Amino acid sequence: MADTVVTECVSEQAEKNVNVDLGSRSYDIRIGRGLLETAGSEIATLLPGARLAVVTDETVAGIHLKPFSASLTAAGLDHTVITVPAGESTKCFREFEHLCDEILAARLERGDAVVALGGGVVGDLTGFAAAAVRRGMAFVQVPTTLLAQVDSSVGGKTGINSRHGKNLIGAFHQPAVVLADTAILDTLPTRDFRSGYAEVAKYGLLGDADFFAWLEDNWKAVFAGGVERDEAVARSCQAKADVVAADELESGGRALLNLGHTFGHALESAVSYETERLVHGEGVSIGMMLAHEFSERLGLIGQDTVERVHKHLSDVGLPVHVQDIPGQLPPAQTFMDIIAQDKKVSRGALTFILTRGIGEAFVEKDVDPALVSDFLREKLEL
Amino acid sequence: MADTVVTECVSEQAEKNVNVDLGSRSYDIRIGRGLLETAGSEIATLLPGARLAVVTDETVAGIHLKPFSASLTAAGLDHTVITVPAGESTKCFREFEHLCDEILAARLERGDAVVALGGGVVGDLTGFAAAAVRRGMAFVQVPTTLLAQVDSSVGGKTGINSRHGKNLIGAFHQPAVVLADTAILDTLPTRDFRSGYAEVAKYGLLGDADFFAWLEDNWKAVFAGGVERDEAVARSCQAKADVVAADELESGGRALLNLGHTFGHALESAVSYETERLVHGEGVSIGMMLAHEFSERLGLIGQDTVERVHKHLSDVGLPVHVQDIPGQLPPAQTFMDIIAQDKKVSRGALTFILTRGIGEAFVEKDVDPALVSDFLREKLEL
Repeated sequence: MADTVVTECVSEQAEKNVNVDLGSRSYDIRIGRGLLETAGSEIATLLPGARLAVVTDETVAGIHLKPFSASLTAAGLDHTVITVPAGESTKCFREFEHLCDEILAARLERGDAVVALGGGVVGDLTGFAAAAVRRGMAFVQVPTTLLAQVDSSVGGKTGINSRHGKNLIGAFHQPAVVLADTAILDTLPTRDFRSGYAEVAKYGLLGDADFFAWLEDNWKAVFAGGVERDEAVARSCQAKADVVAADELESGGRALLNLGHTFGHALESAVSYETERLVHGEGVSIGMMLAHEFSERLGLIGQDTVERVHKHLSDVGLPVHVQDIPGQLPPAQTFMDIIAQDKKVSRGALTFILTRGIGEAFVEKDVDPALVSDFLREKLEL
Repeated sequence: MADTVVTECVSEQAEKNVNVDLGSRSYDIRIGRGLLETAGSEIATLLPGARLAVVTDETVAGIHLKPFSASLTAAGLDHTVITVPAGESTKCFREFEHLCDEILAARLERGDAVVALGGGVVGDLTGFAAAAVRRGMAFVQVPTTLLAQVDSSVGGKTGINSRHGKNLIGAFHQPAVVLADTAILDTLPTRDFRSGYAEVAKYGLLGDADFFAWLEDNWKAVFAGGVERDEAVARSCQAKADVVAADELESGGRALLNLGHTFGHALESAVSYETERLVHGEGVSIGMMLAHEFSERLGLIGQDTVERVHKHLSDVGLPVHVQDIPGQLPPAQTFMDIIAQDKKVSRGALTFILTRGIGEAFVEKDVDPALVSDFLREKLEL
């Protein structure tokens, strides 16, 4: 019996907490298995008496809405459910208008809250609507994908896509709390989990060599679930929280988080965001490889470092070469045009995240476009 | 000759400056005749090298765009002009999307700026687009109506209307500078100037008895233009800036600025925002009268105070009774429904701005709806 009690205590303590330190906008990210079932009491404690609009998509609703809703009801939280279509195309002006209207139709007042139950698409769209309705409603994130748990739900970036590019319209709007139930990830298709894992590996590569080494040893356990998964999510959230706390509105250091993303976004754009060919984390994986190879080209790192990154990303099953993307790719000049219109461009100079070693990424604001162009041409012709 | 030089110096010094103190988001409101002609150099000093998207409406463009654009060109500022339709219906999702797209199509980057040249509609829509594009572009306000100069361009509230009500979708987004050219107001129709004046009088009524007394003595000169007008605009901006600095995100004291606005908005809504029947300032004028009469009903002020407010608002030609609105009005219950859906409602309790005398308004968060309903019924049946 004593053993059982101890196990339960360990299990209780296994819930992890990461604080995002942003002064009056500070909040906690809670990480652990089964948080969906205790979400109601967590939210009721934080926002007593609040009425909620729960926004989710059709896919997530089918799997997770019932237990989540039951948890809210058990905690006495009156709530309306708003379902949006699944998929990236939901991050558009039309759905934004629709969602704002639905939140207002639910007659939420100041002091009430909007909850995003879903992946990055639901979180980004819902967060922007929460920021805009009445110029700012309280917002709760319940991310249901690994990508959302370690990336999009941390840091307050919300937004929709425009015909000029992804995430070009939005707001910085911090949540009141993030509840990351890692048991939910058991239901994710492997490809989706792997895509999120690219961002986990990114945190090691950009600033924490120990974490990257830990991932090399423990990635199988992270994929399988259990304490290693919680540890990986918590360390990722902590890494992002540290960067965000130092640069909430992305005026400087936050750009580090874009390691692999300039190339990655260009690849996603080049395949017109066709997820059959490439999902975000796959683009990031190839993008991180390109960032390391480009750093090697510039003499910043050795071939051994490139090979180590290559091995780990390949081991987990992520694509590492542009040739891993099925189908035809456009020529290098198209990529250069996409990169030039990328929102991380500043006054015409190309900004890239380069690296001096595992865990030693840095922001280089003055990269010669000709060097990038030559490098890409070569990679595309391999 | 000496006299002439002195006069010129006085004229130079007549430009007034109000600082809105919001920490890292602080900015200046410059007030004076002829600022449109010097706007280019002001902006170039503040945002060196910035490219601009100038947003204006068809009416304003016809009168003020040419000198403004010439001033920008003279200062070496590269700029694109985006024209939106004039009128309140422009504050909608469709125009918001269109404007965001146009700003992106102009290929503005971080560090560039969006400029609103127009009245409240242009300022509110443009400010929200500036807040949302790339999650926040620098923003400059060049308000061309008295209402915009003393109210909507101060304080960072931006937004559009939803089918559920006015200004229900938006952002707090502070400008980098506000340039209020008081000579522009010479071109305003009297009714528009008068409507803006209701907000000027409001600042006296809510917190500055001396200013209200000064207005009673000087309102004709304010209408005629000249130094009194600049003084009235500057004192109004200062009054709003003080309230905003103490409560940027409207969690408390900023509600004082709503003196006359709960009733006023209900009246505007009741006439379906038909500006032939009622414009915003006229609603505010009647609303301020109602707020004073309701305060008298509650025993907070005497009849003499009500009469003094009545006299001044009537003197300047503003409507003071609901009966001054042409056409039929709905019954009291309709007004109560509108007030209940007003965004200033908190958890079902009615919040009103009441007063204990000229310059002594206060926020009362717990007004009995039955008292309001009885009061309105009586006023509507007069």
